[in-house]
Amino acid sequence: MADKKVEAITSRDEDFAKWYTDTVVKADLTGYTSVKGFMVLKPAGYAIWELIQSQLDKRFKETGVENVYLPLLIPESLLQKEKDHVEGFAPEVAWVTHGGLSELQERLCVRPTSETLFCDFYQKDITSYRDLPKVYNQWCSVVRWEKETRPFLRSREFLWQEGHTAHATAEEAEERTIQMLNVYADFCEQVLAIPVVKGQKTEKEKFAGAVSTYTIEALMHDGKALQSGTSHNFGDGFAKAYNVQYADKDNQLKYVHQTSWGVTTRLIGAIIMVHGDDNGLKLPPLVAPTQVMIVPIMQKKEGVLEKADELCERLSKVARVKVDKTDKSPGFKFAECEMRGIPVRVEVGPRDIENNECVLVRRDNGEKITVSMDNLEQEVSTLLETIQKDMLETARAHRDSHTYVAKNWDEFVDIVNNKPGFIKAMWCGETECEENIKAETGATTRCMPFEQENLSDVCVCCGKPAKKMVYFGRAY
Amino acid sequence: MADKKVEAITSRDEDFAKWYTDTVVKADLTGYTSVKGFMVLKPAGYAIWELIQSQLDKRFKETGVENVYLPLLIPESLLQKEKDHVEGFAPEVAWVTHGGLSELQERLCVRPTSETLFCDFYQKDITSYRDLPKVYNQWCSVVRWEKETRPFLRSREFLWQEGHTAHATAEEAEERTIQMLNVYADFCEQVLAIPVVKGQKTEKEKFAGAVSTYTIEALMHDGKALQSGTSHNFGDGFAKAYNVQYADKDNQLKYVHQTSWGVTTRLIGAIIMVHGDDNGLKLPPLVAPTQVMIVPIMQKKEGVLEKADELCERLSKVARVKVDKTDKSPGFKFAECEMRGIPVRVEVGPRDIENNECVLVRRDNGEKITVSMDNLEQEVSTLLETIQKDMLETARAHRDSHTYVAKNWDEFVDIVNNKPGFIKAMWCGETECEENIKAETGATTRCMPFEQENLSDVCVCCGKPAKKMVYFGRAY
Repeated sequence: MADKKVEAITSRDEDFAKWYTDTVVKADLTGYTSVKGFMVLKPAGYAIWELIQSQLDKRFKETGVENVYLPLLIPESLLQKEKDHVEGFAPEVAWVTHGGLSELQERLCVRPTSETLFCDFYQKDITSYRDLPKVYNQWCSVVRWEKETRPFLRSREFLWQEGHTAHATAEEAEERTIQMLNVYADFCEQVLAIPVVKGQKTEKEKFAGAVSTYTIEALMHDGKALQSGTSHNFGDGFAKAYNVQYADKDNQLKYVHQTSWGVTTRLIGAIIMVHGDDNGLKLPPLVAPTQVMIVPIMQKKEGVLEKADELCERLSKVARVKVDKTDKSPGFKFAECEMRGIPVRVEVGPRDIENNECVLVRRDNGEKITVSMDNLEQEVSTLLETIQKDMLETARAHRDSHTYVAKNWDEFVDIVNNKPGFIKAMWCGETECEENIKAETGATTRCMPFEQENLSDVCVCCGKPAKKMVYFGRAY
Repeated sequence: MADKKVEAITSRDEDFAKWYTDTVVKADLTGYTSVKGFMVLKPAGYAIWELIQSQLDKRFKETGVENVYLPLLIPESLLQKEKDHVEGFAPEVAWVTHGGLSELQERLCVRPTSETLFCDFYQKDITSYRDLPKVYNQWCSVVRWEKETRPFLRSREFLWQEGHTAHATAEEAEERTIQMLNVYADFCEQVLAIPVVKGQKTEKEKFAGAVSTYTIEALMHDGKALQSGTSHNFGDGFAKAYNVQYADKDNQLKYVHQTSWGVTTRLIGAIIMVHGDDNGLKLPPLVAPTQVMIVPIMQKKEGVLEKADELCERLSKVARVKVDKTDKSPGFKFAECEMRGIPVRVEVGPRDIENNECVLVRRDNGEKITVSMDNLEQEVSTLLETIQKDMLETARAHRDSHTYVAKNWDEFVDIVNNKPGFIKAMWCGETECEENIKAETGATTRCMPFEQENLSDVCVCCGKPAKKMVYFGRAY
């Protein structure tokens, strides 16, 4: 049975897309209903989101963020006030046209994002400089009418948080935009064990209505990039469109400066694609709903289940731990632990009990460690920290060894075709070059990283003087 | 300034409805946008919901509940499979008819509740007795196209949790239905300090599609009842409509038995209407985002703000505490603390510092207590527990002194007209009598309480033999 279940996962190198779908299904993260393009987050999937949410929310609140909740539906006239924004979103929203038994006078769209609602709210709620800054966030779901969908990566509805802030000055808004990008980057590295590149999006790739968009970009195991979080500075563009003004200390009316920033359940897709292997999911301990699974060996022998329960009780003080007491074979249980990405497996059988030992098995590298039962709490808790750190280092090593430099067009084309990964290259700053590169190779600008390097003096595409070093890549 | 702000709240006895709205606005719980019938939960309001959510979620998980997330939209054909259910909800749902730029082949309703989706999901997810029970819950928002709306009590969108379970047997389903009602009742009493009557809804008042609906009913300060949480046993009705079957141990296909149960942001309305007074909100400590506000007196004097900060630092170990350092007058700050319902105010000024004392002021009864600073953590933490307990007792005393017995129709009419509160009376069990009572007096059956009493042998309305003792009341 155990082997059969493991075999059902397609090999990662053979067909990454199919491996991804298999892993999502076998790890029991999502389910289906009759609602096309929408997914069900099952307990194993939702519990990961809960851990992301609680840890990220704590980091938000440490920077002064307050949570709120705004309406699900947006009147069409409200959406239309900011021209770029409505053009960006109108083609992909769902429209409510009937409420109860009657047709609405004005149709309402299901929020694809809530800039317009926050503006409308701030317009009513902000009057004086004393009301600033507003640093609000909401946890909710949004709807975008995608044609092709894939669990976590692209679906018609997804869960996310959206922060929306209003400030007295442009400087403060820019500072908050960068601050939240840093919160995301730090969270991805420290909690999800995913290293990211921080940088600015080009004009072409920035958010509809933003002055500047910043992004964190992660590299998946297959060498494709995943935009993992964005933070936008709106300047006073939205404030002007929605008339969000405040009376300053000198009693002059001024426009506020706004930001927004968000991450989504897409992060779960990133965890799968950065860390997973041919045995299934690998969860970093900090987002593993079950961190330790105790598997009793020869569990019908006297004293085995009792010992397993005793260890579980002890370990519950330092970790999220369970005992698998089902009547499946140990081999099946091992495979299931691996499939579900549980960071540490504890094996305990009659011989172990005799020797006052048990075996710890690491999901990240398969290593088996025999330890004394006396000191198990300490052993497990140290091991979880080690795994968390090692998973980040492994992901970083993979990312670094799949980041290439292209100094000219031939090199660029060769890398895109033969070496999946990030490509660092110089760029002239023209949208035309960006579009040519995309059309020729499928690679897009991921970001202009904060850490600039001077790789050459000319644009990798047109040969004109270069302005920026850019990360390129094929992306999800 | 302080008095002015307090005066702005209409007196509770003069106009309870206006008092309610004033309190919601002055305590800064909700805000407005241009979306008619929808409300904004502002930080002070949303933080109460977060405290409700985290404490209730913990209680759920202790009973084995797992959280999931199901789609926001429901295809019309799916909604229509259970006849009673669709009749109950169709008149009040919002319909999505367009996705992106094209009209949908089938319209989708924004979930008013998710029984149909859970059935659809369980139909795909359950195959064997080994898959049972499923004890799932989701935290989300739902939409119901109400005509008249009031913050927290009735709005076109509200936040809630909806639990949906599937079981092998009818007994297990009934047990879970009652178990969750008890979780709600216990939560309301212990956390919200609101005593509730537990009982069963009559046929007329039960949920669309349910075999039986259980409810907790609370009494507001004005003597009106508020249905505060419900738990439904569906039997196998939904399972038959949606074909949710499992193979039992004997390999026979059987229908599952289902339940659902929910509470909403309406609970915040209950907190306001049970505990509030003419100075504003009164929050039970366990759901107070700020439990203690330190108000420095003569804060410009040397050492006052430093001492306030020091006390705040110390108290932060036992409570959610803040210092109000704004340049408003102490009187204004006191009024604001009261308006926002903060359970304990700590006053500390130069003379207090000299005497190594400070003054604790209880929001619930206005009592002032001078205590030594030495033992402040213990004093405050004990005081918060006392307030929590006293608020429940005060609410219980009010509820009990506003619960009346009507033995005949004259008594019933007299009570409805002159003594707002619960009315206990005997009932024959006929819907016709229930409808007559409602038409004549505006009072509805709130529940048939689990704790039955034999008040008389005949129905209070028709005089025929009585079957049940019922709680009646005018309700929100």
